[in-house]
Amino acid sequence: MSNIPFSGARLWASLMEMARIGATPKGGCNRQTLTPLDAEGRALLARWGREIGLSLTTDRLGNMALLRPGRDPSRKPVAIGSHLDTQPTGGKFDGVLGVLAGLEVMRALHESGTETEAPILLINWTNEEGARFSPPMMGSGAAMGAFTEQQVLDTTDPDGVRFGAALEAIGWKGEGDPAALRDLEAYFELHIEQGPILEREGLDLGVVTHALAQQWFDVVVTGEESHAGGAMSHRKDALVAASILVQALESIAHEAGGDGRATVGRIAVEPSSRNVVPSVARFSVDLRHGDEAALDGMAAALRERAVAVAAARGVSVEVKPFWAFPQTPFDPALAERLRQAARARSISFRDMPTGIGHDAVYVARQVPTVMIFSPCHGGISHNEAESITPQWAEAGLLVLADAVVATAGIVRA
Amino acid sequence: MSNIPFSGARLWASLMEMARIGATPKGGCNRQTLTPLDAEGRALLARWGREIGLSLTTDRLGNMALLRPGRDPSRKPVAIGSHLDTQPTGGKFDGVLGVLAGLEVMRALHESGTETEAPILLINWTNEEGARFSPPMMGSGAAMGAFTEQQVLDTTDPDGVRFGAALEAIGWKGEGDPAALRDLEAYFELHIEQGPILEREGLDLGVVTHALAQQWFDVVVTGEESHAGGAMSHRKDALVAASILVQALESIAHEAGGDGRATVGRIAVEPSSRNVVPSVARFSVDLRHGDEAALDGMAAALRERAVAVAAARGVSVEVKPFWAFPQTPFDPALAERLRQAARARSISFRDMPTGIGHDAVYVARQVPTVMIFSPCHGGISHNEAESITPQWAEAGLLVLADAVVATAGIVRA
Repeated sequence: MSNIPFSGARLWASLMEMARIGATPKGGCNRQTLTPLDAEGRALLARWGREIGLSLTTDRLGNMALLRPGRDPSRKPVAIGSHLDTQPTGGKFDGVLGVLAGLEVMRALHESGTETEAPILLINWTNEEGARFSPPMMGSGAAMGAFTEQQVLDTTDPDGVRFGAALEAIGWKGEGDPAALRDLEAYFELHIEQGPILEREGLDLGVVTHALAQQWFDVVVTGEESHAGGAMSHRKDALVAASILVQALESIAHEAGGDGRATVGRIAVEPSSRNVVPSVARFSVDLRHGDEAALDGMAAALRERAVAVAAARGVSVEVKPFWAFPQTPFDPALAERLRQAARARSISFRDMPTGIGHDAVYVARQVPTVMIFSPCHGGISHNEAESITPQWAEAGLLVLADAVVATAGIVRA
Repeated sequence: MSNIPFSGARLWASLMEMARIGATPKGGCNRQTLTPLDAEGRALLARWGREIGLSLTTDRLGNMALLRPGRDPSRKPVAIGSHLDTQPTGGKFDGVLGVLAGLEVMRALHESGTETEAPILLINWTNEEGARFSPPMMGSGAAMGAFTEQQVLDTTDPDGVRFGAALEAIGWKGEGDPAALRDLEAYFELHIEQGPILEREGLDLGVVTHALAQQWFDVVVTGEESHAGGAMSHRKDALVAASILVQALESIAHEAGGDGRATVGRIAVEPSSRNVVPSVARFSVDLRHGDEAALDGMAAALRERAVAVAAARGVSVEVKPFWAFPQTPFDPALAERLRQAARARSISFRDMPTGIGHDAVYVARQVPTVMIFSPCHGGISHNEAESITPQWAEAGLLVLADAVVATAGIVRA
């Protein structure tokens, strides 16, 4: 715990100022990536950085890196990052909290004249949300080698606009090499939880120890179309069979333990007529778990249940893998540093995984990384009603700041 | 059982000849209502009628009525009817069997010089299928007072063409009053079962005693949207709740007894994203039963289960009535006449309801009515693969013919 005057009030004021850019009538933000409003948000961050002497490098994908030099030229930067872009009907805090908390760390170091051993770097990643250009987390993903730069530049939005063209149009295509952002000593990201656990448990902070592994599937149940006026006895109703599997998936998640999640987010039937027994039901399955073996077990349980339902119902069930993402551990030493910081400030916390993708999950492929979660009301996010308290924001800021400073090291006079 | 030489072979040949009009590559028919192909089918029926001296009256909705006079001028006609129009990818027999079996009755009476006491009328109803102009069974429905003539004429197809304009365009708008078709002594309709029961039970014929009552609903389950990465414990998943109700509906139908049917033909979720727990699930419910009280019981059971699921799952469930159709009994004396005819010819049969709408169900509102079902392979209908055997067609023809002749009465020389 340092005596540097990190200010929760100033952080909050900056959050509110940034929220004016793209403010929506319902109190949220629409500052989608690579729009003029995104450019305005970027310009504000750049100005704030200039005011405290940070030097800005923008790379070829628009990722912004604001550097505060350290004393030791041999040390790599200790980085803090997140994103300023929002969903079309997003909130004020998702992503923004992490960037502006990082800015506040820089401001307090600057004002107190504190010199650190390692440089400190503040990163605003391009297109975390993936709302306009899909997939999400493009800037960090490409920087860490998950996609090529060209893949990102060639992505188009629903209007057919290329990512590369949109980036140039708003004037934020830089010359830096995105891969340079792999060269970090550590990476910290503060983010709202986007879930209800911390608030419900009355805790002020989450130490995020890992990102859940994910396996996504497409399931197709094929039965037999028949008329709704026909007898029940000979039906091969694809939707009834699918509904058994939807329920089974919930049980599979519960049986897999606390980290297990199973979600059916999409479903459709054919021929989709009120008075026709569906011949086909298609649904998506999203399985997650903190443990790869447990996740494999969940997928195996899904396949077993599919076989059983097919046999019992005279239908066929196909379970097709769609996408997978490995379990990503965060750095245990950095996580422990967060716990120490929280304890020193008497901030209540718990360890938890993230079930949601974040820039940090890509960064963790190349750099020792950890995340901090702040509570958010009702777990509501990707929504104009997203809200947090200034106290929660401050708790996140202080733990982030102390851990970053402890990692970078303070030059004692 | 008469000695009039009703010919299954001639009926079959006529079915195959009619099937050439609008024949599809896969062996079905596309002879949608009020198209040039419908006009061609109508013209063929009219020619066949002229060849045996039938007098044709076409009414203002295009319903065709071909009359064979009886000896007794005080008797109303005994009618045989069905429809020549098909689904876009329909079969050769749905509707057509009933019209051409009626034609064969007329032909055999004509060739054998048989005079009946009552006149016999053959009806081809306009737009039974409802594929181009919705709802189905427009011609019979309007004739029997279920819709006004103007409602039918003003209906538009998906291209915005008015029914009235399409009818005039194919040259089949007549001058007869549709309501004149209420003035019948009895109405018989032979139709393929469009279900698998007769074939599976090895029976050649169904005596249709009644049409099931129907109640249709829209159900809306409202839960809470959350991220698929979030814990299971606090979810209010609208789709999981809906899937419990989909399964409950199957049980409700089974518990309601042999006549009970429950179908969920449509389902959709919001926001319909792979990694978002659905906040809303909407689905249709189609409940049917031969007994009105039992059907009310099924609807009540649905509402009870909805309340229970809402309470257990922390969601809200709204069950909104969408449409209802009363139970329609067919005429018991006419049904008994069918049974006698079947027994006399050693044709195997069973009593059964129709769960599907037919012109006869509207006609039964005004006229003593009965239906005959012929088996069809696999219960497949509204499909180019629809198929029946010549033997099944002949069994239907003979029972229809004998019952019609018994009802009309033969003039003994």
